[in-house]
Amino acid sequence: MNETLAYLRAHRQPHLDALCDFCRIPSISTGADHVVEVRRAIEWLADFATCHGLSAEILETGGHPALVAEHCHAPGAPTYLVYGHADVQPTGERALWHADPFEPVVQDGRLICRGSADNKGPLMVHLRAAAAFLATQRKLPVNLKFLIEGEEEIGSPHLAALIEKERNRLRCDHVLISDTGMYAAGWPTITYGTRGCLLKEIRVYGPKHDMHSGSFGGTIANPAHVLARIVAGLHDAHGRVAIPGFYDDVVELSPAERDRLRALPLDVDAYLADVGSPAIVGEAGFSTNERRWIRPTLEVNGIYGGFTGAGSSTIVPASAGAKISMRLVPEQRGEGIGAQFDAAVRGLCPDTVRLEILSRGHADAYVAPTDSREMAAAEEALRTVFGRNVALIREGGSLPILPMFRKLLGADSLLIGFAHPNCAAHGPNENIILEDLDRGAEAIVHLLTQLGGATGGG
Amino acid sequence: MNETLAYLRAHRQPHLDALCDFCRIPSISTGADHVVEVRRAIEWLADFATCHGLSAEILETGGHPALVAEHCHAPGAPTYLVYGHADVQPTGERALWHADPFEPVVQDGRLICRGSADNKGPLMVHLRAAAAFLATQRKLPVNLKFLIEGEEEIGSPHLAALIEKERNRLRCDHVLISDTGMYAAGWPTITYGTRGCLLKEIRVYGPKHDMHSGSFGGTIANPAHVLARIVAGLHDAHGRVAIPGFYDDVVELSPAERDRLRALPLDVDAYLADVGSPAIVGEAGFSTNERRWIRPTLEVNGIYGGFTGAGSSTIVPASAGAKISMRLVPEQRGEGIGAQFDAAVRGLCPDTVRLEILSRGHADAYVAPTDSREMAAAEEALRTVFGRNVALIREGGSLPILPMFRKLLGADSLLIGFAHPNCAAHGPNENIILEDLDRGAEAIVHLLTQLGGATGGG
Repeated sequence: MNETLAYLRAHRQPHLDALCDFCRIPSISTGADHVVEVRRAIEWLADFATCHGLSAEILETGGHPALVAEHCHAPGAPTYLVYGHADVQPTGERALWHADPFEPVVQDGRLICRGSADNKGPLMVHLRAAAAFLATQRKLPVNLKFLIEGEEEIGSPHLAALIEKERNRLRCDHVLISDTGMYAAGWPTITYGTRGCLLKEIRVYGPKHDMHSGSFGGTIANPAHVLARIVAGLHDAHGRVAIPGFYDDVVELSPAERDRLRALPLDVDAYLADVGSPAIVGEAGFSTNERRWIRPTLEVNGIYGGFTGAGSSTIVPASAGAKISMRLVPEQRGEGIGAQFDAAVRGLCPDTVRLEILSRGHADAYVAPTDSREMAAAEEALRTVFGRNVALIREGGSLPILPMFRKLLGADSLLIGFAHPNCAAHGPNENIILEDLDRGAEAIVHLLTQLGGATGGG
Repeated sequence: MNETLAYLRAHRQPHLDALCDFCRIPSISTGADHVVEVRRAIEWLADFATCHGLSAEILETGGHPALVAEHCHAPGAPTYLVYGHADVQPTGERALWHADPFEPVVQDGRLICRGSADNKGPLMVHLRAAAAFLATQRKLPVNLKFLIEGEEEIGSPHLAALIEKERNRLRCDHVLISDTGMYAAGWPTITYGTRGCLLKEIRVYGPKHDMHSGSFGGTIANPAHVLARIVAGLHDAHGRVAIPGFYDDVVELSPAERDRLRALPLDVDAYLADVGSPAIVGEAGFSTNERRWIRPTLEVNGIYGGFTGAGSSTIVPASAGAKISMRLVPEQRGEGIGAQFDAAVRGLCPDTVRLEILSRGHADAYVAPTDSREMAAAEEALRTVFGRNVALIREGGSLPILPMFRKLLGADSLLIGFAHPNCAAHGPNENIILEDLDRGAEAIVHLLTQLGGATGGG
């Protein structure tokens, strides 16, 4: 193993160069503008895997393609499936970026670009570890498979069908994923639960086109006013979601687990300074970590309608809309909450406008077993490399693939995070600390060695 | 006069061709994209006026330029100032137009393009009448001046200073304007009152950039939620403006005037069919015409924030905003209502976000005297040409120049409308009925003849 670790250290720069090449591909999966780029990113990964000794195949899905790569030559050893995604979020407002989002910049030990943290950098950690084993030992201590998709950021619409079709090829004992965060910079972290997600879009239609607000204002319903009332009606005055029944299926955590989560230090002032908001808000009776990890939420992701250019245009807009995401927790189910949302919105909407509610998919929450041998091995590997105890946390974001893997492959997932809290995933100037990636690759070498050795494999 | 009317009839097609050339100039005054085009439109008018016998000069204003043209060779006759504007509204969503907004289409007797109704077509009616007099009689029955600006659609920010500077040159007995509508297609209409306007923009700022709605949602205020609550709070449940003090200075109309306005027929079903909204709304105790003409309103013209592209991006937006216009009635004043608005918005905004309120200008309401000789002459001229009695109405839109002319030139304004109710001013597929323009030019010939003859001028 020492030779393998030495290889990793010797190949930091070429591995970083490769990651930069990967990040230069603007593989935005939402919308239709970058379809070719998502495929390029998958192809780039296939080339990287093949060059470093894995077999690789690109699979069509009906949407963006996926990659399956593997090296399964450790008879008797357990089999692990590394999941990751090659697609990225849109850049948002370009002016907020200090440089081109797809031209990687290394500054103060960080790699800054779209995808550096979510998920290209952390994904490459596993490929680097595999490459290091194969370069130095010509074998791996376990059977290792990679499943890299191109649609994670749009809710993995074709992944379930792909896994069902490739069930035999993807069979595994456990899934390994690095698409979560670290609790603090330099603090190795395992995430054992994620929130689910439910995506909706509301559209309110009034006059058949934008109307002169002087000539018609005051006589017809303004869709932006109606939308505002609907959105305002989705929370009560205390910030709780006001959809009837929304909290009915929420499972309360055990006092022991709540105590453990509350014991994690959180400097609220530093948190606010990082985020830039003037105040902490949230549901009464819960800590900030609980509010973002174990409580369900409803957030408007975007709101639109009428004239929004420079200057003014005095119109009653023809329509207005809002994109909304809800984060779900055990045992809330997307279908049920979705129906409750629809009913609440319809109840809030007067018949002076036409209403459209679009469903944009959903995924359940997930909680991993905390007593698996994989988690024990990961804690030891991370502690060895990072030199401190591992933070066991939950995560407010959603990984729809977790319940999917459990259902379709019968496998639980181990989530090892390498993205620091200010990585700005989904935001401008997304970045990752390069040392966290380097340590991460070493930790994966430790982890796979231990998991292979423990059963006599490799 | 008959020769002059005959000239107009003989020159319909060249006059229409000229109007089409004028409308092809995309003279959008808001924003910075079309600065050159507004100047082109003013220059085009200067050329047209000069070619037809008027003297013309383009005046710089610090913003878009203005045109002054005149023919003042009728000693003893009264002097009239025709006001109009060469700028137009933005096109809005291009996909809603059946053709290029700046490529005029003649269809079913209508001219369809941006500016056809507001205000290029009606403005040209006056220039056509002047051209007809000068071509056939080499003189006008009155002294006639034209003041055409390029900033009406953005609130005429430089007009007051220009009028003050050119006060002597613009001196007149009365102002003539055709920038209002007809009560119904083919029904000649004089508008004797307009609402004022007050423009505001609210911006709510939360985190320093868009944040992952999973990782941060539920712990910081979402600017789109706060904005929705503010907007929802600006009206009560019955649709009345909920700003404290908003209605304090509103003057109630006399029972006689209310009766006259209520006597105007209004087919609500046809109104709704034209507008496309599913229902009539508005302030209790007032008719639809009263709601849009004599009652103050507050309308969101645009609302924005976060991710609004195709697909989804699960963020808490860094900011959200709304563009708002209020229509004011006598004796509401922009400064006072503006301060009340600001106070109400601040009262509705929690300190969990940062709030910015931008003032984008205001104009007072205007009511013209209904017993002037100009109005009497106009009623007769319109009745003669259109063959029916004139509708005397008020207008929900704003013409900031009306109180401005009264204040700076001591002159009231006569508003003769040639745009039919479905002209879609400010909307897609803006259009005007060509016969209304043709009759309008003849009516202006009658009007000027009568106004000149009555005092022995011309």
